[in-house]
Amino acid sequence: MEDKILLSHGSGGKQTNNLISDLFIKYFDNETIRQMNDSAQLNLEHNRIAFTTDSFVVTPSFFKGGDIGKLAVCGTVNDLAVSGAKPRYLTSAFIIEEGYPIESLETIVKSMAETAKEAGVQIVAGDTKVVEKGGVDGLFINTTGIGTIYEGVNIKANNAEVGDVVIVNGMLGDHGMTIMCERSGIDIYGELKSDCAPLNTLVDSILNICKDIHVLRDATRGGVAAVLNEIAETSRVSIELEEDAIPVSEEVKGACELLGLDPLYIANEGKLCCFVPEKYADKVLEQMRNHQLGFNAKIIGKVVEQVSQNVYLKTIIGGRRIVDMPSGQQLPRIC
Amino acid sequence: MEDKILLSHGSGGKQTNNLISDLFIKYFDNETIRQMNDSAQLNLEHNRIAFTTDSFVVTPSFFKGGDIGKLAVCGTVNDLAVSGAKPRYLTSAFIIEEGYPIESLETIVKSMAETAKEAGVQIVAGDTKVVEKGGVDGLFINTTGIGTIYEGVNIKANNAEVGDVVIVNGMLGDHGMTIMCERSGIDIYGELKSDCAPLNTLVDSILNICKDIHVLRDATRGGVAAVLNEIAETSRVSIELEEDAIPVSEEVKGACELLGLDPLYIANEGKLCCFVPEKYADKVLEQMRNHQLGFNAKIIGKVVEQVSQNVYLKTIIGGRRIVDMPSGQQLPRIC
Repeated sequence: MEDKILLSHGSGGKQTNNLISDLFIKYFDNETIRQMNDSAQLNLEHNRIAFTTDSFVVTPSFFKGGDIGKLAVCGTVNDLAVSGAKPRYLTSAFIIEEGYPIESLETIVKSMAETAKEAGVQIVAGDTKVVEKGGVDGLFINTTGIGTIYEGVNIKANNAEVGDVVIVNGMLGDHGMTIMCERSGIDIYGELKSDCAPLNTLVDSILNICKDIHVLRDATRGGVAAVLNEIAETSRVSIELEEDAIPVSEEVKGACELLGLDPLYIANEGKLCCFVPEKYADKVLEQMRNHQLGFNAKIIGKVVEQVSQNVYLKTIIGGRRIVDMPSGQQLPRIC
Repeated sequence: MEDKILLSHGSGGKQTNNLISDLFIKYFDNETIRQMNDSAQLNLEHNRIAFTTDSFVVTPSFFKGGDIGKLAVCGTVNDLAVSGAKPRYLTSAFIIEEGYPIESLETIVKSMAETAKEAGVQIVAGDTKVVEKGGVDGLFINTTGIGTIYEGVNIKANNAEVGDVVIVNGMLGDHGMTIMCERSGIDIYGELKSDCAPLNTLVDSILNICKDIHVLRDATRGGVAAVLNEIAETSRVSIELEEDAIPVSEEVKGACELLGLDPLYIANEGKLCCFVPEKYADKVLEQMRNHQLGFNAKIIGKVVEQVSQNVYLKTIIGGRRIVDMPSGQQLPRIC
């Protein structure tokens, strides 16, 4: 094989087919993708499904705790998981700059295959486009996923109810702050890495003990602030957060103070917000804490009657601060 | 609304939400997309499905006969249709360059919505990423689709059998040659335009009269030559084409002679190759010719016992020429 991506790798001819067999089929290996039909032909276990898409343009492509490939699988798996679905099948579509090192592409594809295996999903179809040098910055990946929705589960953004408790499964802001540090060359935060992880087994574990989860959302772009504002708006409620309950690592706290940022607005790639009736809150919290992706889980607030502001924070010194929907651009290409 | 795309349109905050409501939901309007959940929740009519993805990076974004939006819907609809599936649901994911005119984006989204309507599919989920100026050349679109596979249909690339007849539904090379002319500024081919079209109603019409279609493939990148070579290889047969039967318009023929190209290698976006047992060939051909996307349909060749070459052409003067798998890059960013 060549050591760099050529335009001919995207032409639909011999070189495209070689790339598909030597790289994609090699790592994603499963019966469906080996058939190389125009589409993957699948038999689902039932016909109520969740369907979601995400493109990934993160820069740099490799960062502490992950890479664009791992992120691309986690992002779509998590969107399915928080819909109350069992993630089943993914497609992956690459747009690659001419001259991109095949070695890096192979690392990314391997990382996607490993993450897919961890999440229990199959990558069953794909596409490769190559764009001339300068037409795209490195490599972008789209993943689109299908999951089968669990029986008896009804998780929706507009289901939050007064009295619900809001739980997050761990420290906030790790992914966004890692990317920020990588990009600015800051290296003082030795322990900091992206929290990028597939959350479906965590979701399974809490749905196993409580079907009555009202809302689940992974807190990616725009952070917890964006997610809670959206939920408050669509559910027509307000959300009251406790400042001293927000779990943030010392590293992220330090970096936020240095850069004048608020961890509630920073992107995560392995954190979700869970809305559950108060009577189940302790049980769900305990279950989360028993999972490796939830041992720092915390109750951060509760749903209250709608007041003038959607989301607000009771500060440590007893004040009230509005947590508004993020506006403008904190950091582009975070995912 | 602003008149250009800003980085904040991809940040997951207020501006992203405005773009989603004012543009995507406005045009793609359907019950599922209006819910704005992390994923589209769907009830399929049954659980045997086809699943396919494609990214579109065509340049220019607007060309005679279509634009990148129309192409993005047709491409995925056609991949589902040639799998013997009824195209049902699409996702659409945009990667947009900062500063991209919102007016152009709106034209593209409108064109997607119209094509989706024509094809009878719903666009139910989406994603928008904005990349800094120079990080992506204009606008790229990924579409991923789900179709429900028809009962009693078994269309696969490895199903071609000796004795099958190969039919195409019309003139070859129109899309690729249109892009080539647009890009090089050649304007002498007044009638020439992209053949970009959703082929699902054409496929439905032939499946209605003949369930025993062995192979269907749309002939996009690499043209008919690439598609036939792939089918011959996976089915372990050879394919013999008749040169004087290949339908090519005068415009494409002229341009090919001028540029030294072979229409068999040029991309189409509304043409398919259909393999059917000889006894059904006339019936299928007639049915195709009754459809507006098939009135120039022709039998171009037949499947024969495997010989040393996969695909060859019986020339008008009685010779035999190998039609090899395309190698290298004829024209990048054709789709």
